[in-house]
Order: sequence, then structure tokens, then C-alpha cells
Amino acid sequence: MSDANRLLLMLELQALYAEYCACIDEGRYEEWPDFFTEDCLYQLIPRENFDRGLPLATLSFESRGMLKDRVFGITQTLCHAPYYQRHLVGPARIIGTDGSSIRCEANYLVVRTKQNEQSELFNAGRYVDIVVRDQERLRFQERRCVFDSELIPNSIIYPI
Amino acid sequence: MSDANRLLLMLELQALYAEYCACIDEGRYEEWPDFFTEDCLYQLIPRENFDRGLPLATLSFESRGMLKDRVFGITQTLCHAPYYQRHLVGPARIIGTDGSSIRCEANYLVVRTKQNEQSELFNAGRYVDIVVRDQERLRFQERRCVFDSELIPNSIIYPI
Amino acid sequence: MSDANRLLLMLELQALYAEYCACIDEGRYEEWPDFFTEDCLYQLIPRENFDRGLPLATLSFESRGMLKDRVFGITQTLCHAPYYQRHLVGPARIIGTDGSSIRCEANYLVVRTKQNEQSELFNAGRYVDIVVRDQERLRFQERRCVFDSELIPNSIIYPI
Repeated sequence: MSDANRLLLMLELQALYAEYCACIDEGRYEEWPDFFTEDCLYQLIPRENFDRGLPLATLSFESRGMLKDRVFGITQTLCHAPYYQRHLVGPARIIGTDGSSIRCEANYLVVRTKQNEQSELFNAGRYVDIVVRDQERLRFQERRCVFDSELIPNSIIYPI
Repeated sequence: MSDANRLLLMLELQALYAEYCACIDEGRYEEWPDFFTEDCLYQLIPRENFDRGLPLATLSFESRGMLKDRVFGITQTLCHAPYYQRHLVGPARIIGTDGSSIRCEANYLVVRTKQNEQSELFNAGRYVDIVVRDQERLRFQERRCVFDSELIPNSIIYPI
Repeated sequence: MSDANRLLLMLELQALYAEYCACIDEGRYEEWPDFFTEDCLYQLIPRENFDRGLPLATLSFESRGMLKDRVFGITQTLCHAPYYQRHLVGPARIIGTDGSSIRCEANYLVVRTKQNEQSELFNAGRYVDIVVRDQERLRFQERRCVFDSELIPNSIIYPI
């Protein structure tokens, strides 16, 4: 890949990340599974486990169908106090490309705001992704949210 | 707009955002109104009101002249303890373009540092912008700072 | 420099910043000095001193060799409780270019996570850089980390 193509791909990934964050932060959860391929992996996993290659994850979904189930849980059945999320995501690092798939990573930070409370730092870590071009748009074949703190202020309800 | 043009526009907006943040974070408040067109809208508005279409805003200015008044207030008449601001802004999302105007959005986060205190998360939300090309540079025709928390640690003095 | 070249350079700098952050956040400290030229300046300096032109810095290293010494200290001799860092860095602002060197700046924010504690805002400020093309890659000839708060929660061990 030429340098210019690499830089343009960085921008494309940045656009993908921005759309993903906006989808979640605006609470459009029904659109969230569309960011993934039909067969996919979405994991929320503490850094300590990820770095050691230990498989235990806080959340692990393996298909778009499971993501849809999760959305149903979030919006219909899970009992929780609502809160706002606000994602800040750093520039995409392209780790490698292999035919149609791109391995890439980016730092992220999520700020949470509960009703009548101040905004607080909620979750920080890095996305470890495999992105593919699927039906003319980029989608996540894998998205691992590797978070730094094992101590989460209460439970994580919405997608990271 | 071609995909490549769209990506270049994303970058141009990113440069605009970076200049805007630097202007404020460095305390060059006199330059702040120049980021706006002569007729403009600058609002600081809680998300709750914005999402429901309620007009009540914490701050609302409707011309470059009003922004200049505000700067005069900040630098000359308002009595407040000084603090530093530090903006982090996410990638620009282009919502749409219409002739010469661009509707775009970006997540932001402001860190505040008071003298002899630690840096703290001050304000988080999203910019909802209309940007136009005005005299060879990009300017805000509208900038709405839609913030997540209604509970602001003390009052907001400087521009967000 | 044409506008398109300027935007591409912004992207290149963004890629450099992303690699720099990843190197530190992943704890690959041995690679950190390679981001700098042989003769270089790395400073961690409070904003108050920087703005007034006062030279006193929290840390100041003046060659790649001194950076390597620091890495040795961090990994071998300094006694400290380990913690994770997570950098979020804003878009690069190109202040000026002069032949082969680029003066540029970017806002940053570092989140720290100690073992069994929640993530916390650790350090926020701006990078004030001189970047040069050295042996086919971009390196820092100067990197000043100008941080907003003089009050650092405990001491800073790892590079910012």
C-alpha cells in the first residue's frame, strides 16, 4: 500500500470510528449491530486478561444476532438507571492489511453522565479491531474493547 | 461530493477545530469571534433541552458583535477565579453539505485546571455546527455546544 | 506548501502521534527513544513556567542517550507502583515549516489506571514539537509536554 493510500485509509477508519461513537452516544442502539459483519466478534475485556492471552471477557458476542439480542436487552428488559455516554477516540493505527481485512487499533475514552450528576471518566482503553469492506462499507469483523481498569463504576450497560 | 473530497473536507474541518481549541485554550479570546461569520449563532445548551427541541440555552449569542461583547465581559468585567481549559475534540462527522454550507458534528471534552488544583473533567458533549466558506477561510455560521451534564462545576466563564 | 500537502502532513503527524502514544501506553519503553533524533530535547514543563519563558522543567533530557538512561531508570531502578497510561491526543496543528523541520502542536490528555483502582485523569496539556524527517521517518527534535496543572497526583514515572 502506498503512503498516500495508507493515509487515506487512516481517514476512512477515522470516519468509521466517528460514526460508531455517534451511534452509541446518541442512543441509536438499533443501528449498532450494523457496524458489524454477520459473523463477528465483539468483546469487552480487561487489559490484564487480554495482555496475558486469557480468554475471560466481561462481554463476548459472536454474531450480529447476539448483538441484536443485547440491544433488545438494553432497550427492553435490563433494569438500569439511564446515563449518557460520550466517546473520545484517538487516531486509528493501521497494524496491518491482509487482502480485504485491516487490523487496526485506537485509544478510546468514555465519559458517563448520570442524570443530575457531573460527567465522569467511565472507561478508558483501546479498540483492537479487524475491519473489512462488506457491501460497500467498512464493518467490524472483530472489535475488542480492551479496558484499563478492572474496577468499573457500577456496571456497563451500553456498548463501548 | 466524491469520497476523496469528503475525506479531505473531514481533514479541513479537523484543522478548523484544532485552531478553534488552541485559540481558547491559549486564552486568545479576542480572536474567538473571528471563527464565526458576521451573522452567527453560538449556543451552549444542555443535551436534555436540545434533544427535546426546547430552546432554553445557558448561553446564546446571535452575532459576532455579541461574541465580542462576551469577550469584553470575560477579559474586563466578569469577576471570576481564572482557570485553564484544555479541549479534546474527536473527528468531524459530516452530516450533510448544501451548496456552500456544511453541517457537521464532533464530540468534545473540556478539562479544567484551577490554580493549585488538579485537572478535572469540566464539560463533555458534542458540537453541532454549520460551517461555511467565508472570505477564503472556514467559519462557523452556527456552533451549538450541546453538553451532557446539567450540573456544571461552578459557572462556565470562557468559551467552550 | 499547497493546501493538499498541508492536510497530508497533518495526517502524517497524526500517525506519528498515534504511534508515539501506543508505544508508551503499551509499555514498550525501550522503543521510546527512537521517536527522537540523536540530539533532541524532551521536556515536561508546567504551563506556568512555559508561558512566562521560565526554564524550570520537571524533566529535561537533551539527547537520545539521556532518554535511554531514563528508560533504564523506569524499567530497572526506580521504585514505584506500576500503573497504566492511556493517551488521547488531539489533531496536530502545523505552526510552521522551515526546510526539513516542522513546528507543530497538539492537545493531549493522559488517563492513569492503578491496579484495582478506577481510571483517573492524570495529566492534560499540549505538546509543543519540532519534528524532522530523519532517515525516512519523522522524529521529534524537540518535544515539550506543557502540562496545565502544577499539582500532579504523585509523581510522573513514565513518559508523557
